[in-house]
Amino acid sequence: MAKSDIEIAQEAKMQDIFEVAEKAGLSRDMIEPYGYTKAKVDIHSLADKPRKGKLVLVTAINPTPAGEGKTTTSIGLADAMNRLGNKTMLCLREPSLGPVFGIKGGAAGGGYAQVVPMEDINLHFTGDFHAIGAANNLCAAMLDNHIKQGNALGIDPRRIVWKRCVDMNDRQLRNIVDGLGGVANGMPREDGFDITVASEVMAVFCLATDLMDLKERLSRMVIAYTYDRKPVTVHDIHAEGAMTALLKDAIKPNLVQTLENNPAFVHGGPFANIAHGCNSVEATTTALKLADYVVTEAGFGADLGAEKFLDIKCRYASLHPDAVVLVATVRALKYNGGVPKADLGQENLDALEKGMPNLLQHVSNIKDVFGLPVVVAINAFPTDTPAELKMVEGKCRELGVNVALSQVWAKGGEGGEDLAREVVRLCDQPNDFRFAYDLDDTIENKLNAIATKIYHADGVDYTTKAAKQLRQLEEQGFGGLPICVAKTQYSFTDDQHKLGAPRGFRITVRNLKVSAGAGFIVALTGDIMTMPGLPKVPAAEKIDVTPDGRIVGLF
Amino acid sequence: MAKSDIEIAQEAKMQDIFEVAEKAGLSRDMIEPYGYTKAKVDIHSLADKPRKGKLVLVTAINPTPAGEGKTTTSIGLADAMNRLGNKTMLCLREPSLGPVFGIKGGAAGGGYAQVVPMEDINLHFTGDFHAIGAANNLCAAMLDNHIKQGNALGIDPRRIVWKRCVDMNDRQLRNIVDGLGGVANGMPREDGFDITVASEVMAVFCLATDLMDLKERLSRMVIAYTYDRKPVTVHDIHAEGAMTALLKDAIKPNLVQTLENNPAFVHGGPFANIAHGCNSVEATTTALKLADYVVTEAGFGADLGAEKFLDIKCRYASLHPDAVVLVATVRALKYNGGVPKADLGQENLDALEKGMPNLLQHVSNIKDVFGLPVVVAINAFPTDTPAELKMVEGKCRELGVNVALSQVWAKGGEGGEDLAREVVRLCDQPNDFRFAYDLDDTIENKLNAIATKIYHADGVDYTTKAAKQLRQLEEQGFGGLPICVAKTQYSFTDDQHKLGAPRGFRITVRNLKVSAGAGFIVALTGDIMTMPGLPKVPAAEKIDVTPDGRIVGLF
Repeated sequence: MAKSDIEIAQEAKMQDIFEVAEKAGLSRDMIEPYGYTKAKVDIHSLADKPRKGKLVLVTAINPTPAGEGKTTTSIGLADAMNRLGNKTMLCLREPSLGPVFGIKGGAAGGGYAQVVPMEDINLHFTGDFHAIGAANNLCAAMLDNHIKQGNALGIDPRRIVWKRCVDMNDRQLRNIVDGLGGVANGMPREDGFDITVASEVMAVFCLATDLMDLKERLSRMVIAYTYDRKPVTVHDIHAEGAMTALLKDAIKPNLVQTLENNPAFVHGGPFANIAHGCNSVEATTTALKLADYVVTEAGFGADLGAEKFLDIKCRYASLHPDAVVLVATVRALKYNGGVPKADLGQENLDALEKGMPNLLQHVSNIKDVFGLPVVVAINAFPTDTPAELKMVEGKCRELGVNVALSQVWAKGGEGGEDLAREVVRLCDQPNDFRFAYDLDDTIENKLNAIATKIYHADGVDYTTKAAKQLRQLEEQGFGGLPICVAKTQYSFTDDQHKLGAPRGFRITVRNLKVSAGAGFIVALTGDIMTMPGLPKVPAAEKIDVTPDGRIVGLF
Repeated sequence: MAKSDIEIAQEAKMQDIFEVAEKAGLSRDMIEPYGYTKAKVDIHSLADKPRKGKLVLVTAINPTPAGEGKTTTSIGLADAMNRLGNKTMLCLREPSLGPVFGIKGGAAGGGYAQVVPMEDINLHFTGDFHAIGAANNLCAAMLDNHIKQGNALGIDPRRIVWKRCVDMNDRQLRNIVDGLGGVANGMPREDGFDITVASEVMAVFCLATDLMDLKERLSRMVIAYTYDRKPVTVHDIHAEGAMTALLKDAIKPNLVQTLENNPAFVHGGPFANIAHGCNSVEATTTALKLADYVVTEAGFGADLGAEKFLDIKCRYASLHPDAVVLVATVRALKYNGGVPKADLGQENLDALEKGMPNLLQHVSNIKDVFGLPVVVAINAFPTDTPAELKMVEGKCRELGVNVALSQVWAKGGEGGEDLAREVVRLCDQPNDFRFAYDLDDTIENKLNAIATKIYHADGVDYTTKAAKQLRQLEEQGFGGLPICVAKTQYSFTDDQHKLGAPRGFRITVRNLKVSAGAGFIVALTGDIMTMPGLPKVPAAEKIDVTPDGRIVGLF
């Protein structure tokens, strides 16, 4: 029987974090150890170092219940690049406790392509998400306290847009009424909690270029509106200093290692719908100062994750990517070709062929819209048949699409060498990277560019409410911000059931709001769940600790 | 102008935590560094080591708005003992973020008697309180999820006794209605949040003797009652394994240092009213294995803090204290003698004499009820006059009470040498330590013993509700637990305005509940605030970070 992820992780021979740091070019005084297998990096010590590395983005086709293995591929690719003598660092997002205790289990890779210590990374790690939650909730407490203590700013309790948060799947907190119990206990109002990763503090945290930029971004977040509809910011309630104090250690990138003892940053993790879905700018830019190659990933499929990585993160952090890896699995392609989840284990060449357009549309978006070289990584799965693997590869080659089989789940870095060679080759080519839209275009035109060029929609419709919000945002001076589309991850369209590469559809924007600290306009095309719930049997029920402190039951 | 606490702390020459650990007898492989000035101690490596140290409890007269300086005295005493060549470790409670951002500021000592790094200790430190909050809130999410997913246990949503928590002063969350928004979003019910330090998980955490004892205690916590009024425990919803996993690192004691580079554990911090108000058993017992003397403190005054330290913590952890230090200030004694806060800076020998009975009653309780030697530490304050200091000292000596002036706030360890010599002398005397009550007595008799022997009340009355709860708790088999009285800290009575050493009063118990995991019956004598609020101008508004990452405005 195959070993579980946690079994493989716990058998790993981890190197002392000081050794791993040394490998990355970080001396003892440049890191702060958290135990002997985790550390934070002192970014001040690297402030003047130039970025020298090449940047590789790992993205994927639209997610399916079959799983694509983007994180696993990223880890295995970094290990493979290091095996081939290319000094490579990895930049991943931190897992949230919500999914760990819910349905998903861990998020630190899988099989023989993992970052370790897997249990720590999946549980509190270095406390970043708790710090983000505390900063968020301090702001909420100060906001409600301001109202209770006389409300000098004239905040309308019905127009508070700031939510409290917790790093937990807790649907009971989605919609609440708080401030009950009389005058001494606040002001009764409708309220609700988000999961921490959905908070704007998380998005700000991941886009900040340094501590002062973090404070500046925090200070301009809009948290409420007054009775005469003027925006109230964090700065108005004097919360940005204390919030920044709460985040001063969290903002330092977390250093860990892969199973093959290569250095990896795991830092930050915003949602990929209402936020931009990438690890922190601090981690990525620090890695670019240390390594020759940096492999990073973005959330969900390329329509959401890669688009935002390129149009938002790269724009704000002045990053210029060198190559893109697009992960697909035979199972996910068959699912896109109409096969139900239960039947994905059976060979089905027809369905596979039918699913290919989803992959190919993502490929052409990366190449033609963003001007970047791309390679398809077929993430091998034990049920894949030789004929199926051959068909995907053949189809790609036939169309001039770069493709490589990745077997990192089963073989670690060794299984990713073909992919690594292809990535290195692409990085050596000059590219013509460009954004999908210009910032100084109108919100409407920017949204239209994303919808038509990336989703291949015929256009964008606005509900009456959204049209009004559009005008207000332009009036309030937010028109020059990039756009962050909150859309189902399962489809190019805003209907999660339309798989493949649909044509002849329009996108409906139902809601527009500004994340003024993060610095983007969120365009919501449907209801986005910002507080998940637990399933009937939560993963938490299986998690346990042995008397010697070893975690079991974490997948 | 006198330097602020944070200025003194930031000027400190901290030793590398590996050196501090070495001083405590902990080698590199026995600690896990968190940066270079904080560490967690691997308790497994010390499992078989015997306890060898003498145990000194620092407690105080009833708190007043003037402040008593229990933590400052504890730190200065430990430094003084080390100066005199006695290998001494310190065990303190961790500060909560709530008061740090509220009205109080930091809680890591003051003046030249502090533990450092003061900013880290006051902010997230090593993440323990966030871990406790996450464990608490995972349990809450699993409980509400159980109800939403069919409620197989038949939990009555009106009889849930488990609250969510956050480490923040946030009155808006005291009373809420959650689960709103229809069937997909939970079950509407009345609910509320406590501050993390008031959670039963915190009490359990601080009383657990090891990881498996922690799990066992967590598993038996009562979280709700069924429609037919049967208790529902954490074990019933299978949450104890994952909760323990969340706490597996937090349970390890945190090592830091004093300004004079002596080793100190700062670990755990439960409320001293609805819980027992002491640092963790893990920290105290670990320190007793490492040092010749261990100085620790308990919350509030001796009627609450010392009584619970002795009757609950010492009983569960098989600790035998060797001496007690009772802290008083001239200002606090004058306050007890009827002087309003604004006038405490003026000499007032009459009021001082009138305040003495409060001090003397605590002294006689420790000596006569618990059979322990005690020394009064007069914590010197700049406004104290020589005549005032002389009077307190003279009055004590006249009555045969050991007394020493402590000037640690102004002078550090040097200012505590007189006190240290007295403490060492007392520790060398045999004592006849005994509890205030026997466990196998009835709840009523145990409460009566505390009220008459410690508070000097004439007896205990029960509201109709409390009398009914008393019978139910005995019936449910909880009669053999120790008692944890939740009472105002300002008075020996249950009326906060009765200062001094009142006579001719009775205590009214209004509510009785079991903390089955912590292992005590909480007897509430009034409304105890378990979620504080922020003041008109929260301390948070002044806290800030400089571009190089230094915290300012934290007092």
